[in-house]
Amino acid sequence: MPPLDHATPKGDDSLLIVLRPDATDQDIDHIVGRLREIGADAHVSRGKTRTIIGAVGDRIRIQQLPWEAFPGVDRTVPVLKPFKFVSREFQAADSVVDVGGVEVGGGHVTVIAGPCAVEDREQLFSAASAVKKAGAAILRGDAFKPRTSPYSFQGLEERGLELLAEAREEFEMPFVAEVLDPRRVTLVSEYADMIRIGARNMANFTLLAEVGRQDKPVLLKRGMSATIEEWLHAAEYVYKEGNHQVVLCERGIRTFEDQTRNTLDIAAVPVLHRLSHLPVVVDPSHSGGRRDLVAPLTRAAVAVGADGVLIDVHPAPETALVDGAQAILPHEFEGLMDQVRALAAALGRDVIG
Amino acid sequence: MPPLDHATPKGDDSLLIVLRPDATDQDIDHIVGRLREIGADAHVSRGKTRTIIGAVGDRIRIQQLPWEAFPGVDRTVPVLKPFKFVSREFQAADSVVDVGGVEVGGGHVTVIAGPCAVEDREQLFSAASAVKKAGAAILRGDAFKPRTSPYSFQGLEERGLELLAEAREEFEMPFVAEVLDPRRVTLVSEYADMIRIGARNMANFTLLAEVGRQDKPVLLKRGMSATIEEWLHAAEYVYKEGNHQVVLCERGIRTFEDQTRNTLDIAAVPVLHRLSHLPVVVDPSHSGGRRDLVAPLTRAAVAVGADGVLIDVHPAPETALVDGAQAILPHEFEGLMDQVRALAAALGRDVIG
Amino acid sequence: MPPLDHATPKGDDSLLIVLRPDATDQDIDHIVGRLREIGADAHVSRGKTRTIIGAVGDRIRIQQLPWEAFPGVDRTVPVLKPFKFVSREFQAADSVVDVGGVEVGGGHVTVIAGPCAVEDREQLFSAASAVKKAGAAILRGDAFKPRTSPYSFQGLEERGLELLAEAREEFEMPFVAEVLDPRRVTLVSEYADMIRIGARNMANFTLLAEVGRQDKPVLLKRGMSATIEEWLHAAEYVYKEGNHQVVLCERGIRTFEDQTRNTLDIAAVPVLHRLSHLPVVVDPSHSGGRRDLVAPLTRAAVAVGADGVLIDVHPAPETALVDGAQAILPHEFEGLMDQVRALAAALGRDVIG
Amino acid sequence: MPPLDHATPKGDDSLLIVLRPDATDQDIDHIVGRLREIGADAHVSRGKTRTIIGAVGDRIRIQQLPWEAFPGVDRTVPVLKPFKFVSREFQAADSVVDVGGVEVGGGHVTVIAGPCAVEDREQLFSAASAVKKAGAAILRGDAFKPRTSPYSFQGLEERGLELLAEAREEFEMPFVAEVLDPRRVTLVSEYADMIRIGARNMANFTLLAEVGRQDKPVLLKRGMSATIEEWLHAAEYVYKEGNHQVVLCERGIRTFEDQTRNTLDIAAVPVLHRLSHLPVVVDPSHSGGRRDLVAPLTRAAVAVGADGVLIDVHPAPETALVDGAQAILPHEFEGLMDQVRALAAALGRDVIG
Repeated sequence: MPPLDHATPKGDDSLLIVLRPDATDQDIDHIVGRLREIGADAHVSRGKTRTIIGAVGDRIRIQQLPWEAFPGVDRTVPVLKPFKFVSREFQAADSVVDVGGVEVGGGHVTVIAGPCAVEDREQLFSAASAVKKAGAAILRGDAFKPRTSPYSFQGLEERGLELLAEAREEFEMPFVAEVLDPRRVTLVSEYADMIRIGARNMANFTLLAEVGRQDKPVLLKRGMSATIEEWLHAAEYVYKEGNHQVVLCERGIRTFEDQTRNTLDIAAVPVLHRLSHLPVVVDPSHSGGRRDLVAPLTRAAVAVGADGVLIDVHPAPETALVDGAQAILPHEFEGLMDQVRALAAALGRDVIG
Repeated sequence: MPPLDHATPKGDDSLLIVLRPDATDQDIDHIVGRLREIGADAHVSRGKTRTIIGAVGDRIRIQQLPWEAFPGVDRTVPVLKPFKFVSREFQAADSVVDVGGVEVGGGHVTVIAGPCAVEDREQLFSAASAVKKAGAAILRGDAFKPRTSPYSFQGLEERGLELLAEAREEFEMPFVAEVLDPRRVTLVSEYADMIRIGARNMANFTLLAEVGRQDKPVLLKRGMSATIEEWLHAAEYVYKEGNHQVVLCERGIRTFEDQTRNTLDIAAVPVLHRLSHLPVVVDPSHSGGRRDLVAPLTRAAVAVGADGVLIDVHPAPETALVDGAQAILPHEFEGLMDQVRALAAALGRDVIG
Repeated sequence: MPPLDHATPKGDDSLLIVLRPDATDQDIDHIVGRLREIGADAHVSRGKTRTIIGAVGDRIRIQQLPWEAFPGVDRTVPVLKPFKFVSREFQAADSVVDVGGVEVGGGHVTVIAGPCAVEDREQLFSAASAVKKAGAAILRGDAFKPRTSPYSFQGLEERGLELLAEAREEFEMPFVAEVLDPRRVTLVSEYADMIRIGARNMANFTLLAEVGRQDKPVLLKRGMSATIEEWLHAAEYVYKEGNHQVVLCERGIRTFEDQTRNTLDIAAVPVLHRLSHLPVVVDPSHSGGRRDLVAPLTRAAVAVGADGVLIDVHPAPETALVDGAQAILPHEFEGLMDQVRALAAALGRDVIG
Repeated sequence: MPPLDHATPKGDDSLLIVLRPDATDQDIDHIVGRLREIGADAHVSRGKTRTIIGAVGDRIRIQQLPWEAFPGVDRTVPVLKPFKFVSREFQAADSVVDVGGVEVGGGHVTVIAGPCAVEDREQLFSAASAVKKAGAAILRGDAFKPRTSPYSFQGLEERGLELLAEAREEFEMPFVAEVLDPRRVTLVSEYADMIRIGARNMANFTLLAEVGRQDKPVLLKRGMSATIEEWLHAAEYVYKEGNHQVVLCERGIRTFEDQTRNTLDIAAVPVLHRLSHLPVVVDPSHSGGRRDLVAPLTRAAVAVGADGVLIDVHPAPETALVDGAQAILPHEFEGLMDQVRALAAALGRDVIG
């Protein structure tokens, strides 16, 4: 699919420019003149002491100018959102993303599960067999791991992808795997059914653009301190390059609370469903960072309306090379799937798998 | 109930004192000496370059000393939690709190609903009638309102409490109301079935101590930027004065995300259930601050395992004097109660009311 | 001074009401009608798909209505700030506050120093003597302490105030002391030259109103997670009751960073100087929570333009009953005062004392 | 310089493993056994109800195991920091980094200034000429820009680097420029005197490793929500690959305060100077995001002890393609340099340039 032409859509008042009480007529003329130069119109509304200028035209061009640097300007207030293709205004119907034959979005609950990192054939196959049996629809497992410490295990690399591809055949499940490096995007894309962008790379625009040029669906995690609006900007980066198969994944944000690794922003799911047509899944494993929280947070995700969940399952968490503290055991996952199905049924939703 | 004697229980290593690599023997002796002076023992563990002292004795006395100010000390690590009576270690069984005959805690789902502020008889009775009919068990409504702006409506005061008491008779529901001022605690306590401490007052220890001396149950909201541990400290303030009927209410914390008023920390519910025996309810209205989020966040709360929810219902939100933007309408509440019952049933829990 | 009449000043566009694309003419009429009912005017600006209504009139009345609850409303944007008397627009000149003969504000650097809590005569006099000699202008010391743990030292109460009053005579320094309880405001006010509202009580509106009725200056600390705008609201509470002698004290905000107790928001000083005419001082002791940070943060405060600093000094920090880890020693304070004087001189400011 | 061998240094107790009250002897044996398998020793300290195990050996190997996933473990407490080469313990003396002949670190104040993005020859040369004349020592200017919106200006790319190289000749100043993409690291490294890693890429480990293999100094910005410890981890990534010329740049963290773009964590400077031997500079432009804050924040940075500042200067901010709102004008920069020199002199520091 070719890149979309982002210049065409024009809106109405896309930005309000609020002037300072001491702004002069000359300041106003200067701003209005600058708006006209870029092909926009200005609605000037003069109050007793303050003037507000509504800028009408191409929102992208208007919002890019450094209005706060203009004499007389107090601040600006965007009326239209600065992202476009991923917004509900652009597409009213829910997007449904096809991951190797499995749907994500559109009201279903899709469970993605497996080990955080692929460690070896036995560990992967043991986990994959268990999650398949319990009802997961998509396998997770990473071959490249971004680690805070340079001394931690960094992944099996291509060998990991080969093992994931074998597991796909064996257990008839598509898989999702992370990519970290723009030079490896093609490689991961050739093996995986879905490419994952991790939280640390949500604002790695180089990587986003590269992934936007693939024809594999993308699972885009929220950055650790990204606002919802910035996250949608990142999705727009991928989307505008031509790749429209984007799924968002909420995984917690950084706050002062230290009982959990991150604070799961459960409200992000309904907020996103209102702002955007993209599916939203939740990661209860990495948000809490604790094994005992995986089940309750999964239940919350299904109840709040998430389109799916992404769960770490490991056959022997204490030997895990990555994030063992939050992985649940296969038999715990089985019990959790029962809860997922019961909740989905109570809400009239079906679980894919 | 008399205040508990908090000095008696002694633990084992309650604090680890980690020394700096350049700490001297004299520094170590000094610390050990100080521990002995307060009746504590010291376990000195010497490594090649660092020594760690484990302090054994009354955790309260030990943790109060300013160890970081002692020569040679790098930092301290508490092993035992600094709160006691509200901890699971002190009481393994769930506390169940009786609010005018209605139970909160112990696995049930208790729905508390009503207007944010009592505005007049008609508004209150209209809301109370609707929430009672739809299945709420406890009525909410405030007569004293803490407002960010000094120019906002501050509540009907005693007249509001009288109206709430009338509504209790009329609709056979106990009610919960907020108290702001230590000078009004007795007054609110005489009228209400449960006293609420709002988020702004979670660390108002003067008020907490006063409330701790009443024999009415207390609904203690989390402070806007309180850690879970500080929140349990606040509960301990109330508890140790002799009032053991404490219910915690999660209502969101402050983060950088601005799509919602606060970020609901849904994981706080299972975290608290592990740390404490107190019941935990969730406020989906004030956490999100948006009417459209009340239903999904309520569902998440029930699914995650909360002991109840606290919901703003107003017969005409656009005329509300306080927080109209987040109040749901009576008919919306009715639909939401159906969802609450369906979810509770799916999880094998019952809804009180 | 009598309470100010806050209803009179009217502005121009005080609030912009941004409608949703699907808002109807009926929605617009409804909003305009409601504005007229409260004596306000409406500027309706219709774009191709969105309408924006500018509300003109008494900002307080307009901003109190729950516009987000009206049909067709997307969101609102305040143009005028919701506080008034404490704003630069209300008073262009810097306020200078007189604390027992010592000025705070107006370009000078005023150093407030002393022990966190008054523990006994010897400790207080030792600290007071030292800070006086080194050049502090105002003595700090608390007789009532709000403590996170109910088991910590809570202050000497009235005996502490008596000791502070004795120290004032002995060392010829006015003193500032905290008040926690509205029932003790008169007591503290009788003894102290300046009343301090601690961070935990910044939004304790009951206490703020009481303090607003005293004729002693007030030192208002920022709440741990208060925005600058909320802080100015709190100052407005005090101010509108008739007490105009308010000094703001920045003491750090809560963030995810855990190397320091709080994150000192040094930019708050120039931001406040632009928004408000009130003096702003900085507390380098409680923001960092570490003795080694007191000197560098004090230097930063003076350089950024703060009107003063508030520093914990203790003759023997390791015996301190409160916050010993952050108190500096008398001789360290002496060295720090030299730095303060050198920096102030370099910037053309004078140090009072 | 070859990569360092990170496996050799061994410490003493590098991790404390705190067990749960219900941990069994079997749990303890299991943990001790696992420690021995990786060549570490265990100090078992048994209290009345809790046992603590001190792990002694290679901190890297010990801290990598998922101890929280082991039966009986409550939590772990690191005693030694997980980074090594960048710590003060590894190197006591300040690192001084040479940037094309200009020193950063070691007590001097080094001013880096110029436009945020290179837009064209005239803009760059005008800015460079002005900052050189006013006393800046290093030129800043980017040829690749990471932008939140995919529709914003992304930089002149190689043409920008050529212009920067020309400016270097013309004005005799080395320059620093950002790199975004591991595929361009060699390119940027060939042109620039110092490579900058932006806040969005602080945890882009692929990029860090690539930069760690260059022989140009690196300016490493703090991630928007990175803790100081994570930031030092990122520096360690670069350092351990053999590139020891690392300078840290504090640029504000994300908090709830919205008057500024980010909250400048001024305390990070002295905290880092204690933890690490690397130089630390401050970016007053991007932290505040407002032109009026650049001067006060620069003063605070110099006073707190920063090794330098990084300032956006633009000849015509209102035409700037990137971040115009925070750029100061050449004549403002000139006035600011006078303040920098006065403050540095007052503190006995010299300004390089």
